[in-house]
Amino acid sequence: MLQKYIERSYLTMDGLKPAPKDLDLNALFIGDKAENGQLYKDLLNELVDEHLGWRKNYIPQDKGMISPEQQSQPNFKATVNRMKDVLDELSQRIRTESVPWHSAGRYWGHMNSETLMPSILAYNYAMLWNGNNVAYESSPATSQMEEEVGHDLAELMGYKNGWGHIVADGSLANLEGLWYARNIKSLPLAMKEITPELVAGKSDWELLNLPTSEIMDLLEKAGTKLDEIKSKSARGGEHLRELGKWLVPQTKHYSWLKAADIIGIGLDQVVPVPVDDNYRMDINALEDIINKLTADKTPILGVVGVAGSTEEGAVDNIDKIVELRKKFAAKGVYFYLHVDAAYGGYARAIFLDEDNKFIPYEDLKDVHEKYGVFTEKKDYIKRDVYEAYKAFDEAESITIDPHKMGYVPYAAGGIAIKDIRMRDTISYFATYVFEKGADIPALLGAYILEGSKAGATAAAVWAAHRVLPLNVSGYGKLIGASMEGANRYYNFLSNLEFKVGEHTIEVHPLTNPDFNMVDYVLTEKGNHSLKDINDLNHKMYEEASYVKGSLYGKEYIVSHTDFTQSDYGDSPLNFVKSLGVSEEDWNDVKKVTIIRASVMTPYMNKAENFNYFTPKIKLAMQHDLEAIFEK
Amino acid sequence: MLQKYIERSYLTMDGLKPAPKDLDLNALFIGDKAENGQLYKDLLNELVDEHLGWRKNYIPQDKGMISPEQQSQPNFKATVNRMKDVLDELSQRIRTESVPWHSAGRYWGHMNSETLMPSILAYNYAMLWNGNNVAYESSPATSQMEEEVGHDLAELMGYKNGWGHIVADGSLANLEGLWYARNIKSLPLAMKEITPELVAGKSDWELLNLPTSEIMDLLEKAGTKLDEIKSKSARGGEHLRELGKWLVPQTKHYSWLKAADIIGIGLDQVVPVPVDDNYRMDINALEDIINKLTADKTPILGVVGVAGSTEEGAVDNIDKIVELRKKFAAKGVYFYLHVDAAYGGYARAIFLDEDNKFIPYEDLKDVHEKYGVFTEKKDYIKRDVYEAYKAFDEAESITIDPHKMGYVPYAAGGIAIKDIRMRDTISYFATYVFEKGADIPALLGAYILEGSKAGATAAAVWAAHRVLPLNVSGYGKLIGASMEGANRYYNFLSNLEFKVGEHTIEVHPLTNPDFNMVDYVLTEKGNHSLKDINDLNHKMYEEASYVKGSLYGKEYIVSHTDFTQSDYGDSPLNFVKSLGVSEEDWNDVKKVTIIRASVMTPYMNKAENFNYFTPKIKLAMQHDLEAIFEK
Repeated sequence: MLQKYIERSYLTMDGLKPAPKDLDLNALFIGDKAENGQLYKDLLNELVDEHLGWRKNYIPQDKGMISPEQQSQPNFKATVNRMKDVLDELSQRIRTESVPWHSAGRYWGHMNSETLMPSILAYNYAMLWNGNNVAYESSPATSQMEEEVGHDLAELMGYKNGWGHIVADGSLANLEGLWYARNIKSLPLAMKEITPELVAGKSDWELLNLPTSEIMDLLEKAGTKLDEIKSKSARGGEHLRELGKWLVPQTKHYSWLKAADIIGIGLDQVVPVPVDDNYRMDINALEDIINKLTADKTPILGVVGVAGSTEEGAVDNIDKIVELRKKFAAKGVYFYLHVDAAYGGYARAIFLDEDNKFIPYEDLKDVHEKYGVFTEKKDYIKRDVYEAYKAFDEAESITIDPHKMGYVPYAAGGIAIKDIRMRDTISYFATYVFEKGADIPALLGAYILEGSKAGATAAAVWAAHRVLPLNVSGYGKLIGASMEGANRYYNFLSNLEFKVGEHTIEVHPLTNPDFNMVDYVLTEKGNHSLKDINDLNHKMYEEASYVKGSLYGKEYIVSHTDFTQSDYGDSPLNFVKSLGVSEEDWNDVKKVTIIRASVMTPYMNKAENFNYFTPKIKLAMQHDLEAIFEK
Repeated sequence: MLQKYIERSYLTMDGLKPAPKDLDLNALFIGDKAENGQLYKDLLNELVDEHLGWRKNYIPQDKGMISPEQQSQPNFKATVNRMKDVLDELSQRIRTESVPWHSAGRYWGHMNSETLMPSILAYNYAMLWNGNNVAYESSPATSQMEEEVGHDLAELMGYKNGWGHIVADGSLANLEGLWYARNIKSLPLAMKEITPELVAGKSDWELLNLPTSEIMDLLEKAGTKLDEIKSKSARGGEHLRELGKWLVPQTKHYSWLKAADIIGIGLDQVVPVPVDDNYRMDINALEDIINKLTADKTPILGVVGVAGSTEEGAVDNIDKIVELRKKFAAKGVYFYLHVDAAYGGYARAIFLDEDNKFIPYEDLKDVHEKYGVFTEKKDYIKRDVYEAYKAFDEAESITIDPHKMGYVPYAAGGIAIKDIRMRDTISYFATYVFEKGADIPALLGAYILEGSKAGATAAAVWAAHRVLPLNVSGYGKLIGASMEGANRYYNFLSNLEFKVGEHTIEVHPLTNPDFNMVDYVLTEKGNHSLKDINDLNHKMYEEASYVKGSLYGKEYIVSHTDFTQSDYGDSPLNFVKSLGVSEEDWNDVKKVTIIRASVMTPYMNKAENFNYFTPKIKLAMQHDLEAIFEK
């Protein structure tokens, strides 16, 4: 029966023509000045009418339950007025205290921006049906869309036999990745107990170092013993302390600590790997750590590579982690690899041609030119970032959030897995949930961390993926616009200097962006005190944020972060030295305050647009600095 | 600085007048025949205009980035057309394969129905700002709303010093409850190691049986040692196997197995407690189990009581679990109590007066009459259900999902905790996240399971709570409508019989509903074979579900479930016996197939409405039965 639905859906899907090759991104946003506001309203009203008509025409002979007479009663009207009062209050509060990240050239802060109009519309529309994708039966249309979106994400990662689904957010997707790693790593030990013949002759050390693909093959051979094996895996509370260490970049996002807490392996199993000057995982340090741990026969549960770190947008050299894994495999050491591309995952689209094939490096510039990915012929793509993305398909699982670089509204995280068979290691009710040969879980909730989930989210992501293909012709252009904007901003900041009374203020960008994040530090010429520098940057942040009054009307908005020695080790040392700060001072103050911008705006790629805003930004920064020094 | 915002918000909130006393629920839904469709559109367009105006007027001197000239270019138009094609496809698929649960009298299946218009509008509106409630800075307005909603939920539960927040769904809220229980239970063991003076003279057994409130008091005394203690608690991977058993009703929802898997205690720590004939936890059996376990010095990590079970809507006797806990406390045994009221949580509003005080039982009927909670003077409220809800405030944590009986669209789960200090047991960065004396976490993500979360969800729940107060004057009426509709449906089914050719088909409701769920079984008169009965009910389900073709136009829709011996033990035995089935037959077939309806529709409380639909339902059932027997 499900099969029937799937066939029907794919038929209708086939009805959709291919997307045009020269998409104009400007048609897909409401616009920083609501330039496409009327278009949005027209489409919205059309969709709402379609829903209302559907309601009206479901068994048209049934009369409605709310009569015009009732609608004119005083208590009906009073209730409507109450609703209006509440919505007024809501509107007032939201308009007073929201962040204007729709702005094209004024907002240079957190990872947020305008979101895609088709996604907002699809969400609004699907929400009226209120489907729940936990179960196919509750939401046939949007469950089907989630399945398609999951395959989109897997294909984007280069997975041949993968799967994926929407997750409420990236922290949960990371937790799910760790859940996979934990359960999979423990399975061979469970097999030793239940089906020793499957793993005959292997030591515990060997069992803890089996590649995931081999474990999946063994699981297939387990046949009816599957559930028994699973019950003796980590899900049974077994072996949790034997699975070894979970290696994450030193700048570890707190979500990894939380995940290790929740999943029960414990915080002390999380091992930080130092980052280098570019805030990427230091591969030599990684190798050392693995060597040391495995010399003591401590297994490595897994390694997390990050693509688009939260504070720096740094892309770890995933290819080198993969290479290292191959090297260790020869020594009988294996670790699970999870890529946290919550932020940067969609950027892989910039490397895929229209057939979703990874573009050879030597062709990249030509292809980008052909599709107008960048407005100028510049080298925005670093070779090592290219190689990092290319290697994604070797990772077992990848977090990728549509609500970040997918430009879909919150809450829409996501995960893709390399091997669809991995699902069985965390699933419940494996035996009956695929009805009648169909490939869609009848109960998605039995295969994932979450339970109930909005069908509307799937509709929103689906609409985005259908309008913007996940390759160089669609999302690649959007990612390109963001990266080009970031590079313009980086270059702009690199040549900036302010005079405030007798003070000369210089601007020092942190690193050339791997992706679209630009961090910088202001210093006063001649003052090399780190404390004073931090003080200046914190004051700048306060001026250019909600801290100093309403954001509405504020002409320049940023976010900030602290790079502390406890989180970063001495990675920032070379940078702070370049500011004239002494090593002693760094060791004393132990942190540097950074101003940080996720450049997600889709408008700042064009020179004309960017140049329009630069004098305005300069002026706003000048005002902020004057406010600081006048005190 | 946060303080400023909070003050401002509370000021504006105070501007909201109290809700009128005689709310008309019919004004709050779009309507099964879109009777309020125009009202919905008017309000929606007004809100969208307010958003567009806000965009336009943010620094009005900035020019827009999308010019009319660009808007008339061919590739702009082609992109708009692409978007329209995709939205058409979306609309077509959703209209073809969605579930008409907006229907007043045709849909008697899963726990879904129309959702509140103010919530849909608030979501649509807030979504345009795309706030992320993970951090206050990203979403001041909606973070404030989530804080207020959290306090609403805590107050609804009777918590004096509680807290709450929105969770993506009930499974995750349950997982968070178990996370709390696990970490809290392990803290005294960690104290023994780090601050032995705090727990001097106590045996491990005593440490594992400290009441939660005492543990919170000790934690306050720990001062600067807090983080060290936490690092040696379960979050450090310590003591997981010492914490004891997690007791859940035998009919355990798979989310509890999943939670025990994820949280690392393991499935074998989950102990099922038998349910009685009414599908409520058997309190005597619970006592026996605890006695047996504690006799062996196996601690009880916690007990889960359910209020509104997924399949039966049964409400466990929470008061009796609380009583039992007091009894065991005298013997030095303590367990954490989590109430899974994902489904039934909002029903507590029916027991609260306008000052949110729990209404004395003897006044209940009068108060309900005064507020028009029911249209008829019937005894829809069972005394033991009343007592169960009254005792909620003794539980440490409660799952309560706005997207179920809160009539808010997906995805909006929730949790409330009894003691706000509990937050510290699962939190990260406790030291700096409350800025400048404010009570709102600057980084909510450090206090909860999830990370990024839609501000729009908070807006949707907030709007619902402001229109419908969480007491007898607001949600109480909505819950009342649902319960009254369920009782009508139950009575209707109780007196139903069909003639199909030579066959007489009888209808047997399972139990008088505790809440608003009605289960029933069809039998053919004279046929007492359980296999045949199951077969008949499964066929009926197929006729009245998507299995037999499109739901659009289907005149009667139900859902179904199997009560299996493995999940239910012999709880269904008396019921199947009442159908004439022998005990041998039950032991042989081991399951009974049930037709199940969550009666959430807000329209079926009125006799006039219900009676309008009964002949139509009867006719549709007759047709379904004829289709079955004709084969």
